[in-house]
Amino acid sequence: MDIIEDNKTAVFEEGKEDALPTSNGRVKLHNARLKSIQDDHLYHIALSTGSDDLRRLFGDVKVVCFGGQATRMEKFAWFIAREFDVSDTVHNFAAGTDRYAVYKAGPVLSVSHGIGIPSLSIVFQEIVKLIYYAGCENVTFFRIGTCGGIGLEPGTGRMDGAFCEHEEEEKFLWLREIADRGVTNMEMESLGFTALCDRANIPGAVCCVTLVDRCEGDGITNNLQLLQEWQTYPQILVARYIRNRLDL
Amino acid sequence: MDIIEDNKTAVFEEGKEDALPTSNGRVKLHNARLKSIQDDHLYHIALSTGSDDLRRLFGDVKVVCFGGQATRMEKFAWFIAREFDVSDTVHNFAAGTDRYAVYKAGPVLSVSHGIGIPSLSIVFQEIVKLIYYAGCENVTFFRIGTCGGIGLEPGTGRMDGAFCEHEEEEKFLWLREIADRGVTNMEMESLGFTALCDRANIPGAVCCVTLVDRCEGDGITNNLQLLQEWQTYPQILVARYIRNRLDL
Repeated sequence: MDIIEDNKTAVFEEGKEDALPTSNGRVKLHNARLKSIQDDHLYHIALSTGSDDLRRLFGDVKVVCFGGQATRMEKFAWFIAREFDVSDTVHNFAAGTDRYAVYKAGPVLSVSHGIGIPSLSIVFQEIVKLIYYAGCENVTFFRIGTCGGIGLEPGTGRMDGAFCEHEEEEKFLWLREIADRGVTNMEMESLGFTALCDRANIPGAVCCVTLVDRCEGDGITNNLQLLQEWQTYPQILVARYIRNRLDL
Repeated sequence: MDIIEDNKTAVFEEGKEDALPTSNGRVKLHNARLKSIQDDHLYHIALSTGSDDLRRLFGDVKVVCFGGQATRMEKFAWFIAREFDVSDTVHNFAAGTDRYAVYKAGPVLSVSHGIGIPSLSIVFQEIVKLIYYAGCENVTFFRIGTCGGIGLEPGTGRMDGAFCEHEEEEKFLWLREIADRGVTNMEMESLGFTALCDRANIPGAVCCVTLVDRCEGDGITNNLQLLQEWQTYPQILVARYIRNRLDL
């Protein structure tokens, strides 16, 4: 079980006055114009301030967990619902679209972000607006997912691209060099995720499990069942945090 | 009906010898190592050369249409199946994952790419590998989707971001300035799409319908039914091309 943790961004950070949350731990948005919008459509998650009572639906949210795939985030929501007995069922509040999925289990939102930072950035900013409109307090964000390990134990990963022109040995030399410098994993979303958490002044962390040691190769060597078990590891770790934080 | 067309990349382009297709119109990949891979897992579309008879399943493909959402691409596949009477049903060949969807209707693949270039790039390169392994000949790619218009007629679009700090007037001045310079739309994937078509030496084009005139605002002013009707416009245009090209 290899987990990369990246704790970030205290709620009250000095020298960041424009992004400080208010004293009750609510998120404060940069865009002052939002206050004057009568009906703000959170278009990509199919919710709006005009049609949905966001305060009633989401006011109790304390933790938002993001991950790539909708099915995985639905499973995580069920895991939280059962593990902490906080909900009899889970519901996709973004069912009006297939761009993203937004599941809720008690005080935990479980949100899919798709692949890559542009896809992540759109749902991230709409979720930030959602917790702002819902009046949520002291919310923490996580990204839970998978990554390629660099010098860590393996599983599977992305195959060689159609457009690669480098030699295999060249690639491995480069990966071993960055492993020697202390880099232990690679994935596509954490850079944007942590930057946006910082920008929103929301405490955020990334927990990813490695599915392959890229220093050894990028072929699939493990079966689907094992891969799916590995993908629960970051979920279990974050659930442990949620249990302690919310005293469940 | 506002359609942005961007015809690109002749199949036989001079001075690009490393990317030239073979004389039978097959795609030629840069990555020479692919020939030595016994079982190449197209991981993100849940297909592989070892388990799936790609030549039998996809050998007749002549046109690949990419678009953001899986449901929209399923509808497009049904539209092609019925319009040209090429298939009784449509099937999602990537059903083993929820990352992307790959529908087939006769010689047309209808593929979802998610949001943003990183998401697009992953499925794009696996589809290029798929048509390579399937031995497809003279394939054309399209992206069909939606975009924000700049000085074009409206509909709806993305709401103001949580992190925007600019004044509204400032934004509109900037948009009007680029409209004056002949820029008529904005979206997230075409830059990467056309660059990858060029790199793969596959003829490609982008057809997007504008859903909002961003010079006027970015609020939702049209109903869902109208928006959905607009989204069929690029599909109808591309279907017209397919009819002529394949003599259906």
